[in-house]
Order: sequence, then structure tokens, then C-alpha cells
Amino acid sequence: MTKKISGFSKLSKIQKIDWLTDTYFSGKEAATQVLKTYWNTDKKLQQLHDEFIENTLTNYYLPLGVAPNFLINGKHYTIPMAIEESSVVAAASKAAKYWGERGGFKTTILGTTKIGQVHFTYTGDKTSLQSFFTATKATLIKDAKHLTANMEKRGGGIIDIQLVDKTESLENYYQLHCEFETLDAMGANFINSCLEQFAKSFEREFNADIRFRESELCIIMSILSNYVPNCLVRAEVSCSVNQLTEKNIDGKEFAAKFAQAIAIAEVEPYRAVTHNKGIMNGIDAVVLATGNDFRAVEAGVHAFASKEGSYQSLTHVTIENDIFTFWIDIPLALGTVGGLTKLHPLVKWSFELLQQPNAKELMQIIAVAGLAQNFAAIKSLTTTGIQQGHMKMHLMNILNQLDANPSEKEQATTHFKTHPVTHSAVVSFVNKIRS
Amino acid sequence: MTKKISGFSKLSKIQKIDWLTDTYFSGKEAATQVLKTYWNTDKKLQQLHDEFIENTLTNYYLPLGVAPNFLINGKHYTIPMAIEESSVVAAASKAAKYWGERGGFKTTILGTTKIGQVHFTYTGDKTSLQSFFTATKATLIKDAKHLTANMEKRGGGIIDIQLVDKTESLENYYQLHCEFETLDAMGANFINSCLEQFAKSFEREFNADIRFRESELCIIMSILSNYVPNCLVRAEVSCSVNQLTEKNIDGKEFAAKFAQAIAIAEVEPYRAVTHNKGIMNGIDAVVLATGNDFRAVEAGVHAFASKEGSYQSLTHVTIENDIFTFWIDIPLALGTVGGLTKLHPLVKWSFELLQQPNAKELMQIIAVAGLAQNFAAIKSLTTTGIQQGHMKMHLMNILNQLDANPSEKEQATTHFKTHPVTHSAVVSFVNKIRS
Repeated sequence: MTKKISGFSKLSKIQKIDWLTDTYFSGKEAATQVLKTYWNTDKKLQQLHDEFIENTLTNYYLPLGVAPNFLINGKHYTIPMAIEESSVVAAASKAAKYWGERGGFKTTILGTTKIGQVHFTYTGDKTSLQSFFTATKATLIKDAKHLTANMEKRGGGIIDIQLVDKTESLENYYQLHCEFETLDAMGANFINSCLEQFAKSFEREFNADIRFRESELCIIMSILSNYVPNCLVRAEVSCSVNQLTEKNIDGKEFAAKFAQAIAIAEVEPYRAVTHNKGIMNGIDAVVLATGNDFRAVEAGVHAFASKEGSYQSLTHVTIENDIFTFWIDIPLALGTVGGLTKLHPLVKWSFELLQQPNAKELMQIIAVAGLAQNFAAIKSLTTTGIQQGHMKMHLMNILNQLDANPSEKEQATTHFKTHPVTHSAVVSFVNKIRS
Repeated sequence: MTKKISGFSKLSKIQKIDWLTDTYFSGKEAATQVLKTYWNTDKKLQQLHDEFIENTLTNYYLPLGVAPNFLINGKHYTIPMAIEESSVVAAASKAAKYWGERGGFKTTILGTTKIGQVHFTYTGDKTSLQSFFTATKATLIKDAKHLTANMEKRGGGIIDIQLVDKTESLENYYQLHCEFETLDAMGANFINSCLEQFAKSFEREFNADIRFRESELCIIMSILSNYVPNCLVRAEVSCSVNQLTEKNIDGKEFAAKFAQAIAIAEVEPYRAVTHNKGIMNGIDAVVLATGNDFRAVEAGVHAFASKEGSYQSLTHVTIENDIFTFWIDIPLALGTVGGLTKLHPLVKWSFELLQQPNAKELMQIIAVAGLAQNFAAIKSLTTTGIQQGHMKMHLMNILNQLDANPSEKEQATTHFKTHPVTHSAVVSFVNKIRS
């Protein structure tokens, strides 16, 4: 059977599966059955999920877990996390408990402004363009009223539009650089619609202006930016160095080594990337569970980490007057309305679990999840090493790969409480009890 | 009920849900039912998914869709994508078809080396440390033999270990900078285990060396890097400028405007972040469907985008001798064995759909998914604008929010084939047919 097909998206779900299994799979029945096993038995619910995207065949499962005992600004939260990595929820829970006993997490919103740009080229006199823009700005805003009226009623809307001369970077390149306040909406559709309207009005007014008869304007594109350095939140924890003392851990020594690990992530990109990756384990898990777009968040966060010209740690630490303070500043453009937030039943469930946060509160909760994750990772790395905890969490995956039965799992879990977990050690152990 | 809890992870799934619904939810029955609705009816399968992480309550659904008609190095693929964003699969399918008719995608592996580091501080003479390292290097490698033997049998293993002096960045800071070839494994456990062994051996040999009686060595941490600029793949498309001509699109004009859009993403970080975010829509969807770790990929990719000191586009274009060439160079550390790859039934299904690629082939397929996504986005942005296509795909979500019945959906779909989709236009239309 040929592997090219026309009109695939027009086929029914079953027809799509038939073509795929005929074309690519040796066992058609089994391949079809796998997909069907993941369908929900509630047909209406399944249809809802099918309609999220094009060519849906089934539901990809990510485990939805929870990390309890987060004390944030004096209030207790249990945080929902959708993630496949075995140690993330466990690490978050551990960090939550640790800091719950040491005053909890404090957070501050540092800004909520979002950005969009109309990118264009223009050949002609710069002063004329500037004075044209100044005269036309009010028209741009007025023409977008049908898009902005509702947002303005709620207190948001367009904050400002500026003309930016980028011709030093690229010949004839200018921008309308626009700032927005989108409140509880992530705002992508709102911002993009406004920008496309700005571009239309700008072009229309330009073409009507006799000053520009000899000049050319070309709108290249109008699009929001996922780089949101002014949509920023801080989360922090703090306690006396003494309070860091635990069994086998000297508080002062621990604080110093912890600070050294952060200092390394501030100066060494190879380390900073993995350091921040660990933060994003926590961030993305909550972003997913609350129906937000993790690609948008990832892009904005990592660009923020590179803003000083080299890629750096998002978290920082100080030890001053015997006070250990650990914090993160992180850009997060999130929505608690729109998108999937009111559509995906598990997202609605997550919002109720989080006590119906607005976008600002969600920024704070998610920043805390990132900081907690980083604390747990650095604590492991600088004390026991990462593998001990990670492999302990991974043990069940290895046992499942070996098709271990409940009794084998129980024996293995007991054994590996006191023995280091490696893939080959688990294989040997299971083989031994089987023989 | 108090919102703090001890021993939560020890509770059964039902006990966890009971505590959560008692503590946070107004309607306990309904909140419990939502979670249960998402459980798989196959108990053994559900248990498998429950055991991926800690505190799993249910399965978070991401739609698993497919994009057909990808022609890569002369071979046809249908690519599996797990993603919630409405326009991503549709855009991938469109770009696949477009380039399928223009020679398809070509790819090249530019490197497969992965990195890990032992970070340590040392006070003492630099020359002694260097000669100690040179003398000890073979011991480090020998001591790790029990970890590396299997990987070496298959042709991988440790490539090199270097001592790096980082004291100019941070006082007393040095690294063992290590390179690995992990073949078809993503390699995180392998690399981390090797590094922890290196650190142990290094410390032991150091303490046994009388030269260092007056010096101090402190191992801060041992950990792989997700920054993998030498685990790199290129994907490209190319055709004559004439071949870009379509109904309403002049090939030459399109090529020029497309190139301008790429040039802008090369010089303007606000644009580059969203440009690359669009690429990651395609990348992450396949990374997820193939059981890889999208946080690791995201971190490595965005750091790579910032390596020149400012955050830049990952894709590039040339128009030379009337040939339009568009390509991406992207670092991708992926696994086709280990982790969830053999554990998650839908991941196994995805691998069969992709004709059982090894890690190098998967790098190439995923790079193509990213390039295709970017092509589709830039084409929309520079021609019709992004909102038209996006809102068309989003129409069904809006209709579902309004609880539209099948007849209302059909009427709306027909109507909005010829009318612009906005949230308020859809609301008005549905209200009209309902009244």
C-alpha cells in the first residue's frame, strides 16, 4: 500500500486508523486495539477530546498526580502535576514539606505586561515615518475598539504602541512594539487580533498619505511575543542557616555547598541548562495540568535565562547575617480563562483543587512549583547525588519492563530499600527470585 | 478539614482522592467522578500508568494525532503528535504535503556527542592538579568499567574526560568535563552513574595523594548536561523559486517576504522566541508521542538559540541562483530505548508507526517536524496572517464551550467557511440559530 494519501483529515477516525494500520503495521488488529483501549467509554467525552486538534486517534496518557503541603503566602495548596518523569512529584512533595516547616514560600508579582509586534519594512524618510506614526497612533487604537472593548471593561487592553527603528539590525526594518494587559486571559488571540488590526489600519493610513508616494511600506507579519520579561513573578524561601540542620546535614556546610551549586549555574551554561531544565519539570507539570501552553512558557523562560548574553541560572541564593534566602524570578504568561481552561474536565478539576486562582495567583503557584523542584534537585545533587533518589523512583518502571508480578514487586521494593538501584541489579534480583 | 497532611504518598489512590475531595472540593461526589471517568477500564493497564510517577490520581489526556505525507530522505512517514494546541497537526500536515510535492525533506546528523560534568572546588596549585588529573584519568575510566561495559559492547561509552579550569569565572571552580556516546539511549542514567563514579574515584585518589595534604577538594555535584550543541541534526527543504508560485502567491515575492521574516527572527529576540516556540510545537508533540523528555529537549534547544550572545532564530534561509533553501540546525538528545519507550503502549505504537527508527533516525524525523511547523507558521504569517487559520482550527473548541449540539456544529462549520471566526462572532451565530 502506498504511504502517500490525499484527503486524510476528511476521513473518519476509524478510516484513519484503518489506513494507518494497513500501511504501517504488521498486526493490524493489535495496532487498532491499542488505540481503542485508550478511548474513553463515554462517547461524548471522547468526542470533546477528539475535537481539540486535527486527526486525533486516541488519548495520550500523562499521569496526573498531586504534590500536597505547599504553604504559599500563608495558605495551603495541593498542586496538580501532569508529568511522566518518575521523580518530579516526589521531589515537589518533599520540598513542599521541607519549606512548610520553615515558614513556607513567599511570592510577589513583578509585572503582568505582554508584548506583541507588527514587523514591517519601510523605505523613506525616518522623520516622516515618526511624525506619521505619532499622528496615526490614536486611529490604530480607535480602529481596534471592537476587539478591545470587552477587555477594557474588565480593566485590561492596549497599554501602549511604540514605533521602533530597527534599521541598525536589518535594512529598512521597523516595528510597532505594543504592550498589552490581558488580565486572566493568556491573551494570544486577543493580542494577535489587535496586531492584525493595527497593521491593517497602519497600511491604510500610510497609503492615503501623500507624503509616502515615493516610499514603500511592507507589513511582514503581526504576532504576539512569547518573550515576556515584564510578565514576571518572584517566589522565595528563607530561613536561618541553623534551621537547615538535619540528621547527617550540618546547616552551615549545606548552605555553603548549596550556594556554590547555584553560583556554578550562574557562570556555566552547560550546568545552567540542566539546572533550569529541572525547574521546568515543576513548572510544565502545573502548566499542563492547568491547560496552559508549555511551549510558550518554555520559550519565554529560557530566553529570559539568556538575557545577559550568556545562558544562566533562574534561581539565586544569598546567605547574609546567617539568613539563607533562595529565590526565582521567572516570566510566566498564563491564562485562567480561555483556551482549554474551561473545556478540559481535568483542567477544571485542577482549578478547583487550586481554589480557583486568577492568573496572578496561578503565576505565583507555578513559580513556587519551579523553585521547589530546583531546591529538591540541588539538595540531592549536593548531598546524596541525583541517582540514588532518581533510581529509587525509577525502580517501578524497571519492574514493569520486566513484567514483574505483585509479589516480585513487593520483594524488590523491600530489597532495594537498602541496596542501590541499578538496571542490572534489578534484573539480577528478579531473575534470582524467579529461578 | 486541615489542608496539611502527613504520609500522603503512603495512602491508596482512593484514600488520596478522598482526602483531596474532602479538603478542597464543594461537590465531593462529582470531583471524585471526574477523576474516575478518566481511569482506564483495564485495571492492569491503569496500574502501569499509575506507577509511572508518585501520587497518580488519573490520566491526563493529550490528544494523540498524526500528520501524514512526510517525505524524508525519499521515504514516506506519518508522524505521531501528542499535543493540545488546535492548529499544530493541521499545519504539520499542510507543510508535509507542500514539501512532498517539492522534493521532500533532507536531513543530516551533524553529531551525537553528549556531555556530563563533575563540578568541584579545589584550593591549591594548578599544575599539580593538572598532572594529577593526567595520571588519574585512566583510573577514572577503569573504575567505571562495570557501568560502561554493556554500552561499549554496542559501540558507545566514554569518549573523553577533560579537566577544565573555570577559576576565572568562579573562585576555585574546576570541572571534569566528560563526553559520551550513548547510541540509542537518551543516556541520562548512564551518564549520571558514570559521573558519580568518576567523582568517587577522583576524590579517593586525591585523598591518597600526599601532594594535596595542604589542599582542599570539594565535589559539589555530578550531573549530565542537557546542553548538547554537538548532538545536532540538520533538516532542510529546497526548490526553485518558481516552484513556490501558487494561486494568489507569486513565488519570487513569497520567497523574499519569507526570507525577510526569517531575517527578522535572526536579529530580534522578541520575535525569535515566538518563532522558535512555533518550531517547538512540532518538536515537542513528537518528543511526547515517542516517550522522550520534552523539558530536556526544550532547555537544550533554547540555550542553543542563545549561543551567539543574543537569542536567535533556529531556522535560516537562502535564495541563491533562484534556489530557495530553508533549514534548521537543532540539538536533540533522544532515546529509542530505555525510559518510557518500551513501557508506554502508545509510545510503542508510535515507534511502529515510524517504522522503528533508531535514535539518529528519530532525531531526523523530529527535526523535520520542527522545520515543517516553522514553514507553515511563516507562510501563514507572511500571507493571510496567523489568526485566520488558527481561529478556524479553534472554532470547534469555542462551539464545545457553548455546548453546541451536532446540528449547531454543522451549521456553524458551514457558515464559518466563508466568515472570519472570532469568539464573539461564534457566540452571536449560535445564539441566533438557537433563538
